[in-house]
Amino acid sequence: MKFKIEKKLKNSLGRAGVLKTAHGDILTPAFVPVGTKATIKALTTEQVLDLGAQVILANTYHLYLQPGSKLIAQMGGLHKFMHWNGPIITDSGGFQVFSLGIAYGKDISKLTKITDPSFLIPERFDDTDAPRLAKIGQDGVSFKSHLDGSIHYITPEKSIQIQHDLGADIIFAFDECTSPSEDLKYQAEALERTHRWAERSLAEHQKLEGGKKQDLKGAQGLALRSPQALFGIVQGGREESLRKKSAKFIGSLNFDGFGIGGSFAKEDMSTAVRWVNEILPEAKPRHLLGIGEPEDLFMGIENGVDLFDCVAPTRQARNGTLYTGKGKINILNKEYRNNFLPIEKNCECYTCKNYSRAYLSHLFHGKEMLAGMLASIHNLYFIVNLVKKIRQSILDENFFEFKEKFLREYLSSYPIDTLE
Amino acid sequence: MKFKIEKKLKNSLGRAGVLKTAHGDILTPAFVPVGTKATIKALTTEQVLDLGAQVILANTYHLYLQPGSKLIAQMGGLHKFMHWNGPIITDSGGFQVFSLGIAYGKDISKLTKITDPSFLIPERFDDTDAPRLAKIGQDGVSFKSHLDGSIHYITPEKSIQIQHDLGADIIFAFDECTSPSEDLKYQAEALERTHRWAERSLAEHQKLEGGKKQDLKGAQGLALRSPQALFGIVQGGREESLRKKSAKFIGSLNFDGFGIGGSFAKEDMSTAVRWVNEILPEAKPRHLLGIGEPEDLFMGIENGVDLFDCVAPTRQARNGTLYTGKGKINILNKEYRNNFLPIEKNCECYTCKNYSRAYLSHLFHGKEMLAGMLASIHNLYFIVNLVKKIRQSILDENFFEFKEKFLREYLSSYPIDTLE
Repeated sequence: MKFKIEKKLKNSLGRAGVLKTAHGDILTPAFVPVGTKATIKALTTEQVLDLGAQVILANTYHLYLQPGSKLIAQMGGLHKFMHWNGPIITDSGGFQVFSLGIAYGKDISKLTKITDPSFLIPERFDDTDAPRLAKIGQDGVSFKSHLDGSIHYITPEKSIQIQHDLGADIIFAFDECTSPSEDLKYQAEALERTHRWAERSLAEHQKLEGGKKQDLKGAQGLALRSPQALFGIVQGGREESLRKKSAKFIGSLNFDGFGIGGSFAKEDMSTAVRWVNEILPEAKPRHLLGIGEPEDLFMGIENGVDLFDCVAPTRQARNGTLYTGKGKINILNKEYRNNFLPIEKNCECYTCKNYSRAYLSHLFHGKEMLAGMLASIHNLYFIVNLVKKIRQSILDENFFEFKEKFLREYLSSYPIDTLE
Repeated sequence: MKFKIEKKLKNSLGRAGVLKTAHGDILTPAFVPVGTKATIKALTTEQVLDLGAQVILANTYHLYLQPGSKLIAQMGGLHKFMHWNGPIITDSGGFQVFSLGIAYGKDISKLTKITDPSFLIPERFDDTDAPRLAKIGQDGVSFKSHLDGSIHYITPEKSIQIQHDLGADIIFAFDECTSPSEDLKYQAEALERTHRWAERSLAEHQKLEGGKKQDLKGAQGLALRSPQALFGIVQGGREESLRKKSAKFIGSLNFDGFGIGGSFAKEDMSTAVRWVNEILPEAKPRHLLGIGEPEDLFMGIENGVDLFDCVAPTRQARNGTLYTGKGKINILNKEYRNNFLPIEKNCECYTCKNYSRAYLSHLFHGKEMLAGMLASIHNLYFIVNLVKKIRQSILDENFFEFKEKFLREYLSSYPIDTLE
C-alpha cells in the first residue's frame, strides 16, 4: 500500500491524497460505506459502485461469528464472497466485542452504558439490541456471541488471523474501545493494553505477510493472498495526555496507517482529532472510525483525517431520514405525500434522477423494501460525494469557502459552538 | 393494442404471438411479475428489466387506497410514478376487494375461507393478514380499507375510472371473484353480476377512451393519455356449465382480450382453462390470473393462455425458497451454508453469475435485505425465462418434448395426476 499526499490545506492539517491498495486506488479524503455483514444493507455492490463509493468496510466481529472467517477464506476471501472487487477495510472486531459481546459467568468487568447525550458514540455496526458486556483480560477478550450464546476468546493474534482469512486490503490492530464513562485510571490501563495489543497485532501481521510472500505462487489465488495493510488504532478517550501518549506510541510503530478510535464529546472531538494528527506521522493515512455526519466530515478533514466510515447514512435512510443540502428531511412527513419533486433538486443520484418524493413516501408508508434501497442510494451518494467535493475544494484551494457555504445552508444554526 | 399469433401448437390450443401495446411489444406467452403497490418487491425497475421481464402487473385496489389513483394521475400515470417504461397491466381491484376488503356494519354477506388444500387460490396480491370480508350489492362492492378502516364503494364504472387514472396499457373489467366454497346458486348469481359489470366496465371504458381521443393534443402528455386496452374476465368457478356460459358471454363482448379468473381445484384447472379457451375468440389474448408455478405454466400455455401473473416467485424468494431445474430448494437449509456453487449451475441470472449459495445462506441467516433482492432476481428470472423457453419450443415445434423433459427433471414424481 502506498499513500501520496497531493495537496495540503494552508494553516491546518488537512490534505488530499491517493491511497493505493491491492484492489485499486482510493482518492482521499474518502467516505467508506459500512457493510457490516459483507453487504451494504439493501444494495448490490454494483449500486454501491454506481453511487461513487471507492472502498467499503466490513465488520470482523460479525463475519467471524457468521458465516465464519474460515468459510470466507475457503471461498477465496471477502472480495469474492461478497462480489466487490474494489478496496475493502475490516475493523479489528475490538469495538464490536465491547459494544455487542455478551458477558458470561459472574465476573463481569465492564458495562458500557452512556446516557450523556453530548457524547458522540462512533457508529460502526448496524445491529442494535444486545447488552454491552464483555470480559477483558490482559491477553484478550472473552465474549458471548449475541447470535447463539457461544463463547469466544479474541486475542490480538486471533483478530489478525481472522482478518487475514477475510483478506481485506486494509485491516486494523486489535484495540480496546473504552467507554467515556470510565474513570481516568481505567482509561490509562486500557490504553496500556491497547498499546501492547498493537505491538502484538503488528508482529502477527508481519509474520503472516511474510508467509504470504513465500506462498505467492500457491494455489489460493490472488484474492486471498494479496498484500494487506495494517493500521494501528489510537485511543485515549477525551484525555489530552492519553490521546497524545497514544498518538506518540502508536505513531512510532511500523503501521501502514492509523485509526482514531473511541468516543468523543461532540464539542471537543475536533480538539481530540487535532491532538492526535499533529503527532501521527504525516506521510501515513488516518481513518476516523465510526464518524460520518457532514459537519464532522469537514471537521475531520480540516484536522488531517483521510478516511471515514459510519453507518449513519444507511441506517437513517432505512428510517426515512434523507440528507439534502439544506439539512435532513423525514420523507414520512405528510407534506411529501403529493410532492412530485426529487428528494433534492439537481442531485445526480439514481434515486433523484428517477423517482419523486411522492413515490418514496408511498414506498415508506407501504413498508416496501425498495424504500430502504432508494433512500440508501441517495444518502450514501450524498455523503460519498460531499467528501469528494471537499477533496476537490482542497485541490482548488477553496476548502474554507466551501465549508462555510455548505454548512451555512446545511445547518440551520451555523455557525454553532461544536463547529468552533 | 394489436395481437398477432405467430405459431400454433398442433392438436392443442397453445400458441405463440406478439401483443403490441402503447409501451412496447410483449412476446407471448409471457410471465408478468407482480408489483402490487407499484413496486416489484425488493427490486428496481432496471433489475426487473434486466432479468428479462417484458411487462408488469400492479394492483388497482392497493394503489387506489394508497397513494391514491388521482395522485398517480397527477404525476402523469403509473409508468412515470414507478419509473417503468414498458407495458403495465392493472387488475380491476375486484379480486382484492373480495380477498382483502374488510366488511363494515352488521350485514356481512361474504366470507371467503378456504381450507381444502386441493384448491388453488390465485396469488395476485402480496399482502397477508386481513380478514376476507366485503359487502356485495348488485351495483358494486362496499368494503373497508385494510389500511385505515375507511369505507369505499367500488362500482364497475369506478374501477375503470381508477384504472384510467393509473394509465396502464392493459386494464381489466370489474368482476366478482367467488370462493369455491360457495354453492352453485351463489356462483350463478355472482356470475350474472360479473357479466352485467363487464358490460358496464366496457361502456365506461369506451366513453373514457373516446374522450381521450378528443383530448389527444391536451396538456397531460402521452404517459397518461396513451390508449388502454380492456380485458373482460371469465368467471364460473369449477362448474362446467358456468365456465362455458361465461366464456360465451364475455367472449361475445367487444373486449381487447380476456382474463380467466377465480379459484380452481389444482387437478381440474386444465379442464376449466380448456373449456374457456375453446370458446373465447382465438384472435384475442388471454390472461390466466394469479397462476404461475412451472407445471401450471405448461398446462396453461398448452391450453391457449398467453399471459400469466403470480406473486409466488417473489413471495417464495423472500422466504428463501428458490427455483431450480430440479425443483425448489430452501436456501436456509444447513447444507447450503458452505456450498460455493451458485443457486443453479449455468443459470444466467445476475444472482447466479455473481454469488454463491453460501453467500445467500449467510444473507438469509443474517436477515439482510439483499437476501430478498438476490433471491427475487433469481426466481423471477427462472419463471420469466421458463416461459420464454416454452415460447421458443412452440416456435421450434418441440413444445411437448420440452415439457416432458423439463417436468421430468423439475417434479420428482412426474408424470403426476394433476398434469394428466
